[in-house]
Amino acid sequence: MGKVVHKVAALAGGVGGAKLVLGLDAVLGANLSTIVNTGDDMRWFGLQICPDLDSVLYALAGLTDPARGWGVADESWEALAALKRLNAPTWFQLGDRDLATHLERTRLLESGLTLSQATAELAGRWSVASKVLPMSDKPCPTKVQTENGWLSFQEYFVREACRPKVLGLRYRRGALPGAAAMAALQAADLVVICPSNPWLSIAPILALKGVEQVLKQKPVIAVSPLIAGQAVKGPAAKIAGELGFGATQAAIIHYYKPFLDALVYDHTDPERIAPKVQTGIIVRQQQTLMKTRQDKIALAEAVLELGAELLAKKK
Amino acid sequence: MGKVVHKVAALAGGVGGAKLVLGLDAVLGANLSTIVNTGDDMRWFGLQICPDLDSVLYALAGLTDPARGWGVADESWEALAALKRLNAPTWFQLGDRDLATHLERTRLLESGLTLSQATAELAGRWSVASKVLPMSDKPCPTKVQTENGWLSFQEYFVREACRPKVLGLRYRRGALPGAAAMAALQAADLVVICPSNPWLSIAPILALKGVEQVLKQKPVIAVSPLIAGQAVKGPAAKIAGELGFGATQAAIIHYYKPFLDALVYDHTDPERIAPKVQTGIIVRQQQTLMKTRQDKIALAEAVLELGAELLAKKK
Repeated sequence: MGKVVHKVAALAGGVGGAKLVLGLDAVLGANLSTIVNTGDDMRWFGLQICPDLDSVLYALAGLTDPARGWGVADESWEALAALKRLNAPTWFQLGDRDLATHLERTRLLESGLTLSQATAELAGRWSVASKVLPMSDKPCPTKVQTENGWLSFQEYFVREACRPKVLGLRYRRGALPGAAAMAALQAADLVVICPSNPWLSIAPILALKGVEQVLKQKPVIAVSPLIAGQAVKGPAAKIAGELGFGATQAAIIHYYKPFLDALVYDHTDPERIAPKVQTGIIVRQQQTLMKTRQDKIALAEAVLELGAELLAKKK
Repeated sequence: MGKVVHKVAALAGGVGGAKLVLGLDAVLGANLSTIVNTGDDMRWFGLQICPDLDSVLYALAGLTDPARGWGVADESWEALAALKRLNAPTWFQLGDRDLATHLERTRLLESGLTLSQATAELAGRWSVASKVLPMSDKPCPTKVQTENGWLSFQEYFVREACRPKVLGLRYRRGALPGAAAMAALQAADLVVICPSNPWLSIAPILALKGVEQVLKQKPVIAVSPLIAGQAVKGPAAKIAGELGFGATQAAIIHYYKPFLDALVYDHTDPERIAPKVQTGIIVRQQQTLMKTRQDKIALAEAVLELGAELLAKKK
């Protein structure tokens, strides 16, 4: 396998995606480039906050809080408590350690670095072996149209806790991807779409100028974020229903169809995908629920083996 | 006294000045407007940091750490420790609670408020009775020329701990004062220059367009920050020596002479001011060392009594 799959580009959102990224990073090291959604980013208290980049970086730096599954371990909340006393808005959870990341990123950006460069700098300080690349160096905010009006992503996701019904999503379609992200995508032998929310986390990457075109030229494996119609975490199933896609593996195949070569979904999922949906797409069932580090590495290895098969077939 | 002195404008820098401001606030409440130096302000990690405004606000809000004399009581340093682990610059002490103030100020400024409006908002949330007004709504950074080159104020004051010899100081001369600060100055019956560093904290206010002209039309009392040739805190005596002013009460009278009516200095100070220096200026010795809240109120009352005398004389 290692002889065939040299360079992998992974597309990832936050927590769910970051689990597989950790497995891929453990197997591939510097041969992995992860292109991370920045549609969730927001400017908050003057700071540049990149929740998905942080989820991936914290996972790879070994800093993720094991209990919460997001944010930094051994977190404290002193600044947030002081903001609360000051009647400042505190619906976005800013831990003191997490805050340090936002502060330093903002300082690096204000010193003139691009988001790609600032992210590389942070990754380097945390001795992350693989490359972590924001999908774009420009702001590409995803907007969520709900029954209560348009919301920014974090307003929908955190402040409203995904409660309002989603009527539509607006990505920054046609915006320029980051130069480093695009180069990594073009250099990849295999593209892995991590088990992130397709509509919230992956779609903003796909909406960037030229990304789908490159994906059409590459073997692409998606790992489904759904298990038996439910998301492991987050609102993927709820949104799939509200937007009329349906929370099924068939719906995910349909959504990624223009460039998809294979879908991996959980071995416990009873869904059997109709041959007409599956046409030309390889389907594999594996354990996609990742609880331990070993689960993450095992799934990464299974995905890379499937990738080697795809590459061998094309030759 | 209360019948004569209605409205007082105080000019203040940081910690030393804030002590007298606390006393004046306790006596005068809403009839006090404090115009605070913003020459020490800096943008740091993307946040707008206003150390002197914070010293005054924390004092009036009853938040000041009693042991350190600056910053917030019950402070914790989790974010700073995380910044240290991240190899970010940490010479400027950012406590978690203090950070919340910088975050909220920055948020208010980014929402479109002026610094005067943002300061009024913070003061209101802390139920501060008197008015706290930044000297200007525009950045007016004080630059310090040292034997090691030009430094920003905080680089000199905190990073270099005032060690380099000062060769000169550059204020943003002629910049516009804040509209609220100027209105408060014009409306004042009496101006009190708090025991702040004349060259670092008061001079930047005096350098603003029109401020000295208004002071010349008002009774002005300065409270000296020096006791027997030494500053209670900070580099006032060192700088007075390095710049050739001399760390004496006579030097302070000389510096403020164009608009000064009276100088109050400590009752333990052995300096006797020569009549030719004193010409036209009333000199009073009082306890100016303020350790307790009662000391602060007592000094404020003594200053206001002297103010009443000055006003009675002019009538």
